[in-house]
Amino acid sequence: MTPNPLRTLYWENGSLFLLDQRLLPERISYLQCRTATDVVTAIKEMAVRGAPAIGVSAAFGMALAAQEEGGVSGILEAAGALRGARPTAVNLHWAVERMERRLEQAAKKEGAALADLLLQEARAICEEDVAANRRIGAYGAALIPDGAAVLTHCNAGALATAGYGTALGVIRAAAAAGKALQVYAGETRPLLQGARLTALELREEGIPVTLVTDSCAGHLMAEGRISLVLVGADRIAASGDTANKIGTYTLAVLAERHGIPFYVAAPCSTIDLSLERGAEITIEERDPEEITAPGSRRIAPAGVSAFNPAFDITPAELIDALITERGLLRKPGRRGLKDLLAKEDS
Amino acid sequence: MTPNPLRTLYWENGSLFLLDQRLLPERISYLQCRTATDVVTAIKEMAVRGAPAIGVSAAFGMALAAQEEGGVSGILEAAGALRGARPTAVNLHWAVERMERRLEQAAKKEGAALADLLLQEARAICEEDVAANRRIGAYGAALIPDGAAVLTHCNAGALATAGYGTALGVIRAAAAAGKALQVYAGETRPLLQGARLTALELREEGIPVTLVTDSCAGHLMAEGRISLVLVGADRIAASGDTANKIGTYTLAVLAERHGIPFYVAAPCSTIDLSLERGAEITIEERDPEEITAPGSRRIAPAGVSAFNPAFDITPAELIDALITERGLLRKPGRRGLKDLLAKEDS
Repeated sequence: MTPNPLRTLYWENGSLFLLDQRLLPERISYLQCRTATDVVTAIKEMAVRGAPAIGVSAAFGMALAAQEEGGVSGILEAAGALRGARPTAVNLHWAVERMERRLEQAAKKEGAALADLLLQEARAICEEDVAANRRIGAYGAALIPDGAAVLTHCNAGALATAGYGTALGVIRAAAAAGKALQVYAGETRPLLQGARLTALELREEGIPVTLVTDSCAGHLMAEGRISLVLVGADRIAASGDTANKIGTYTLAVLAERHGIPFYVAAPCSTIDLSLERGAEITIEERDPEEITAPGSRRIAPAGVSAFNPAFDITPAELIDALITERGLLRKPGRRGLKDLLAKEDS
Repeated sequence: MTPNPLRTLYWENGSLFLLDQRLLPERISYLQCRTATDVVTAIKEMAVRGAPAIGVSAAFGMALAAQEEGGVSGILEAAGALRGARPTAVNLHWAVERMERRLEQAAKKEGAALADLLLQEARAICEEDVAANRRIGAYGAALIPDGAAVLTHCNAGALATAGYGTALGVIRAAAAAGKALQVYAGETRPLLQGARLTALELREEGIPVTLVTDSCAGHLMAEGRISLVLVGADRIAASGDTANKIGTYTLAVLAERHGIPFYVAAPCSTIDLSLERGAEITIEERDPEEITAPGSRRIAPAGVSAFNPAFDITPAELIDALITERGLLRKPGRRGLKDLLAKEDS
């Protein structure tokens, strides 16, 4: 079954189906994950990517582990492997921890009953993610003026989440409210999530999108073409410092120079109060060949290597507002983030 | 004949041979240009690129026109076509004008004698370019500390000139002076001159080079990995505002934020006192398919277009020094640039 519209993931007959995002936009193909290990591999190899989407996938990975023969110790082993699949996005840890809490509460259940309980929890995480994104969209849309030209980076869309999207959710909500928008999508080398995924989502929505190279951002701003910058996040430290796709920090520095608002849209599961500052966030380094030989076609001369960090850190001082499902936080910092996490979902 | 080491261009048996840089690093192949029109096409399609290199190529294009049957009016027609081949780099205009002056002075010559005279002038421009680059290297090397990590963008190397290079000439000279260097080369989307050309030149020289995506620059600087930024230029207005490959402005803004020196290396033929400010420089917009379908493989979804300016403008205030063949100019501006152009070559 191929769902229409595109879904990032779905559960069917005891398997997790993940849209293989590496093949987009050319090919729509779902990976069937029968085991937690399948999910770990899919996350590592970025068949599924985007902080909220990998969190939800990991939750289903725990549900798959509960179907296997290893009992509770097998489920806990899967939790460790899922947590280690990618180091930067904290949503992965958040989702695995939530599943572990459910597991603890269900100490007396075992076998099919336990598996069913964990599946229910994963489904809840999945549904809550979509609902959170819709609330993020509603809160964020208020920040988007009619006629705005929005610069975004990477893909913080439906494909980065269980559905609707964070940064693109805000854009969707603003467009649904009748605002005219123009989106500039940075292509996002090396893996081109902007060109392949964001452009695809916006085209499907009928929202005007223009692709640019990542290095075009300064020029666009200098020419007065950008009203605001809007991105997602992979981890937000207590200080408000934010890890997101490599290149995000550069956009924030440029936005500040040009007096352009810089907004981050992310669910509260992205906030990690255990880390004080951005410098404490582990930045994943990926295979240099993603840069030197994209799509297996070598573009750099033989013997030349590359440095390929997947994320960078935007200091809180450069972030004008954080848009979450619990509301907007202007100039995010420790107190504001703590209050936000203490708040009940509205 | 395939020259070794790689030469950007050479003249042989009445033809200009241009290294087809679109095929590097995979394939070494020279385009034989028999007519001025061949040269116009090669410049437009970026078989040859780099401001000084297209200036020298245009000079040889005029020499080719003089071999054709059109007489002086044919040569002047070729001059117009060469000037129009690409709009931003002023070296093209500078070289064509110099050839036109030579043509005026030679009013009484015609046929083979005239062709020979123009060929001599083109050869002189070519040789002077290499000599200028060596002087740029010598002046600039003084700015490079031992152990420096240099971030460069695009290719301002031997392949962007008649030989030796501007920004890479400075790096070559510093390395030749025994300084330990580490170069970070921005890959330079969409056409990847950093990955394909700069990495190739530096590998051949044995200078350590690490490739990065263009959007990695901010992260590198924030991590303290960069000592200085060094780039070439395509046109420098009287104010010192400088046009260079798209992405350069972003590097300058980032360098300022991190207190990292930002240097431009270029011959005096890149200075255009006829334009007061950078805003007056025409920025070439190239085919969106360079972004959406690189190497004819479409990466963006069908129906999605791109904005593809080839250059941006770095304001003079962000440039710590201009390195020319006539010396260093700290904080380049109108008076300094005028004095520089009035100076005899040292």
